[in-house]
Amino acid sequence: MTTPGSTRSSAAIAASARILDSVNRKRANGTLPDDEIEAIVADFVAGRIPDYQMSAWLATVACRGLSTPELTALTRSYTRDGGRLDFSGVDGPVVDKHSTGGVGDTTTLIVVPVVAACGVPVAKMTGRALGFAGGTLDKLESISGLRVHLPADEVVPMIRSVGMVITGQSGDLTPGDGATYALRDVTGTVESIPLIAASIVSKKVAVHADGLVLDIKTGAGALIPDRDRAVELTRTMLDLARSFGLSTRAVLSDMSQPLGPAVGNAVEIKQALAVLRGERSPGLWDLCATICRLMLQSADPGLSDEEAELKINKALDDGSAYEMFLRWAAAQGADVTVLERPDRLPSATGRLLVTADESGLVTQIDPRAVGSATLLMGVGRLTHDAPLDYGSGVLLHRRVGDRVSTGDVLAELHYNAGDIEGARSLVHKAFVIGDETPDVPPAVHEIF
Amino acid sequence: MTTPGSTRSSAAIAASARILDSVNRKRANGTLPDDEIEAIVADFVAGRIPDYQMSAWLATVACRGLSTPELTALTRSYTRDGGRLDFSGVDGPVVDKHSTGGVGDTTTLIVVPVVAACGVPVAKMTGRALGFAGGTLDKLESISGLRVHLPADEVVPMIRSVGMVITGQSGDLTPGDGATYALRDVTGTVESIPLIAASIVSKKVAVHADGLVLDIKTGAGALIPDRDRAVELTRTMLDLARSFGLSTRAVLSDMSQPLGPAVGNAVEIKQALAVLRGERSPGLWDLCATICRLMLQSADPGLSDEEAELKINKALDDGSAYEMFLRWAAAQGADVTVLERPDRLPSATGRLLVTADESGLVTQIDPRAVGSATLLMGVGRLTHDAPLDYGSGVLLHRRVGDRVSTGDVLAELHYNAGDIEGARSLVHKAFVIGDETPDVPPAVHEIF
Repeated sequence: MTTPGSTRSSAAIAASARILDSVNRKRANGTLPDDEIEAIVADFVAGRIPDYQMSAWLATVACRGLSTPELTALTRSYTRDGGRLDFSGVDGPVVDKHSTGGVGDTTTLIVVPVVAACGVPVAKMTGRALGFAGGTLDKLESISGLRVHLPADEVVPMIRSVGMVITGQSGDLTPGDGATYALRDVTGTVESIPLIAASIVSKKVAVHADGLVLDIKTGAGALIPDRDRAVELTRTMLDLARSFGLSTRAVLSDMSQPLGPAVGNAVEIKQALAVLRGERSPGLWDLCATICRLMLQSADPGLSDEEAELKINKALDDGSAYEMFLRWAAAQGADVTVLERPDRLPSATGRLLVTADESGLVTQIDPRAVGSATLLMGVGRLTHDAPLDYGSGVLLHRRVGDRVSTGDVLAELHYNAGDIEGARSLVHKAFVIGDETPDVPPAVHEIF
Repeated sequence: MTTPGSTRSSAAIAASARILDSVNRKRANGTLPDDEIEAIVADFVAGRIPDYQMSAWLATVACRGLSTPELTALTRSYTRDGGRLDFSGVDGPVVDKHSTGGVGDTTTLIVVPVVAACGVPVAKMTGRALGFAGGTLDKLESISGLRVHLPADEVVPMIRSVGMVITGQSGDLTPGDGATYALRDVTGTVESIPLIAASIVSKKVAVHADGLVLDIKTGAGALIPDRDRAVELTRTMLDLARSFGLSTRAVLSDMSQPLGPAVGNAVEIKQALAVLRGERSPGLWDLCATICRLMLQSADPGLSDEEAELKINKALDDGSAYEMFLRWAAAQGADVTVLERPDRLPSATGRLLVTADESGLVTQIDPRAVGSATLLMGVGRLTHDAPLDYGSGVLLHRRVGDRVSTGDVLAELHYNAGDIEGARSLVHKAFVIGDETPDVPPAVHEIF
C-alpha cells in the first residue's frame, strides 16, 4: 500500500486522523466545517494524506453530496496557495469558457480561436480526459512541439501577443484541484455534481476572466446524463461561480450522441482544423456557434445575436479563425507545418470498418459505448500510468436521423493496439438502427 | 500515487475498468452481480487493483449498503481460494466467538481460556485494531515470543494438544478479507454494517466451528453506536452466518463506557491475567460470564444456565482457566515467566494522572474519547505504517455511577511518546460528572 514513509510526522498523523473522522462524519450525513475541508485539501496537496484516504473521502462526498457552504469551502480550498491571473495589461475584457466534456467534443479547439479572431481575448485553461470523455490537453499533446503547460507568468503575455491562450491547468493556480482531479479520474468519482462544480469553478475563479461561458452537457454521454441533474449541475455552477464574483452564462447542450464525427486525440485536432477551415460539421458547429455568441456578448453585452453571428461566420469564412489557431500554436512551440498538413499528425496503422447489419434510420448512437471503445484502443486512461495512443480513434460516418442501408459504413476504427475486437463490438452496438423516425436532438437544449 | 507498474497487464486494465464501473453503478444505487463482486475481491487480492480504487469502492459500499445477495457474494468472495479448518480429529464440538470490538474489550483473552478450561475446545482467529477500538492481535504481540500467526496447518493440532487456540486471521483462510481489512482501517470504512458483517462472518465460515457466539456492541464506543443499527448488524450477521450453515447465538452488549478498566496493549494483557486469576472486574467479567455460558451451551445444548455458571466460576476459582492461558501461550512460544510476572510485559515510562475538577457522580465516560486518546499515544494505528507502542495505555479508576470528589484520580495515562497533552485532554473530557444518579447500563443488553 501507499505509505508515506515508516515514521510519519505528527502533522501527517493529525491529517490522517482528521480525514478518517471526516469520512465517517460525512457518511453519517454530518456537516464538514470550512476549516476541516480546507485542511484536508491542503494536507493532500502537501502529501500528508495518502491517496487511498483521499479516495475514500472523495467517494464518500460523491455519495453524500455537499451543502452550499461545504461546496464553497471546497472550491476555495482548491485555489488556496494558488495565484490569480492579472489581465490588467490586456486591452478590453478577457473571456473564458468551459465544457463539462463528452465524446467527440472538440469545442474548445474551435471556439477559442474563433472568438479571439473576432477581437475578444480568450484565456482558456484546460484539463485531461476524465473517464470515457476526452480531454483537450491530451488531444493537444498530439501536436508535436506544442507546450501544453505554460508557466502561469507566460499566460497573460501569450494573450497579449496572440489574443488567445490554451494551456494545461496550472498547478500554480489551483493546487488543490490539480491534486484531486487526477485521483478522481481513476477512482470512479468523476460523476458527482459537487466534485465537478468545485473543480471547474475553482479553475475559473483562478483565471478570473471578465466573462465566462459554461457548457454543460446532458444525455447518455455527459458526465451527468440525466437532464434534471444536468440542470441542477448548471444552476449549482452558476450560483457558485457568481458567488465568487464571476460574470457567467451557461448552455445546456446535447451529448445524447457523440458531438462531432471524430473521437480520439489527433483525429479531433484534425476535425477542429477542418471546422476552422470552414467545414460546419452539424451538431459540433451548431454548439460552437452558440458558445461563441455568448462569449462575444459576455465581452460586449450590447452586441445583438445577429451581429455576433455575423462576426463569427466572418472569422470562419475569411480564414482569420484558422490563422489565429496556427499563430497561437506556433507561439506555444508547435511545428506549424504539421498543422498545415494534418496527415503528419500522429496516426494509426490499423483500419477496421463498422457496417450496418440492416437498413433503416439511425435512431441512437450511444456516446458512452463509443468513448469506452476508444479507451480499449488506448485513447484515454484506465489508470494513472497508462500511456496514451495519440493516433488512434473512431470516425463516425453517420449521425442520429441518418438513413442507412445494409453494409453502409457507420464508423471506422483507426487503431494501433489494444482490445480492437472489444472496441469494434462496442461501436457496433452503439448504433441502433430502426424504422421509426427518431427525434433528432438539438445541439443546444437551453441557455441560462 | 500507487501505480502497479508503467505497463499494466490487460487483466489489470480490465480489473480497473470493472471496479470503476462498479463504483459508479453502486453510487447510483445499482445492483452488483455476484461475479462482479467476486472478481473485484479476487483482483484486489491478486494486486491487479491499486489501493486507491479499492478504497473508493469500499467507501461507496459503506455509503450505499449491500443487498442480501450482494452481501452473501462479498462474504463468499472473502473466503475464495482459502482453506477451511478440519476439526474431525478433535474430540467433541469446537466453539468459536467474535466481538465487534471496542475500548477496553479484553473478552477474547478471558473467555477462550475459561471455556477451554471447562473442557470445550475453542478455535479463535482474531484481528488487529480497527479505528479507535483495540485489536486482540495487537495486544498479544506485546507478549514476548508469542507466535500470533500460526500457519493454518498448526491450528487444529494446537486445539488438540492444548484445548484452545488464539491466532491471527490466516491469510490462507480468508485472503479477500485479509486484503481489505487493513485498508478499511485506514480509510474510514470500518463503521459499515455490510462490511463488518462480511468481514466477521467470512472468518467464521472459514473456521467453521460447531458453535459460534457473536458479541455485538452498542453504545458510543461501538463500531455501530446506535442501538437500532447494532440490532440490525446483529440480525444481519446471524442471518448471514446461518445461511452459511453456522450454528450461531448472539449477545448485544454495552459499549457506552469502556468495558474494562485497562485500555491499551500490554495493559489489557495484564487485565486479562488479573481476571483469569479471579478478579471479577465489573462490566468486563459480567459480559465474559454470559459469553462463556452461551459458548458452553452451544457445545452442549442440554446444559442449563446454572450448570454453565457453576463450571465457569469453578474454572476461574480453581486456577484452571489461568493455567489454560499459560499452557496455551507457552505452546505458541511465549516466555511464560513474563506472564507470571506481568511487570515484565512492555510498560511505559511516563505517568500522568487525570483528576476530577468537581465532586459528584460519574454520569458518562466516553469510550471513543478514551480510545482516541490511546491512538494519540501510539497504542493503535492512524495509517498502515504506524509502529505500535505496546507499553502505553490508559487505566480507568472509575466507572459510570461512581461517586467522586474534587481531586480524585479518574484515570492514569501510561505513556512513552505522542501527543500526551491531547490524550490527557481527551480522557479528561471523556469523564462527565454531574449531580443526578445516572442509569448504569447493564453489561449485556439482549441475547439473541
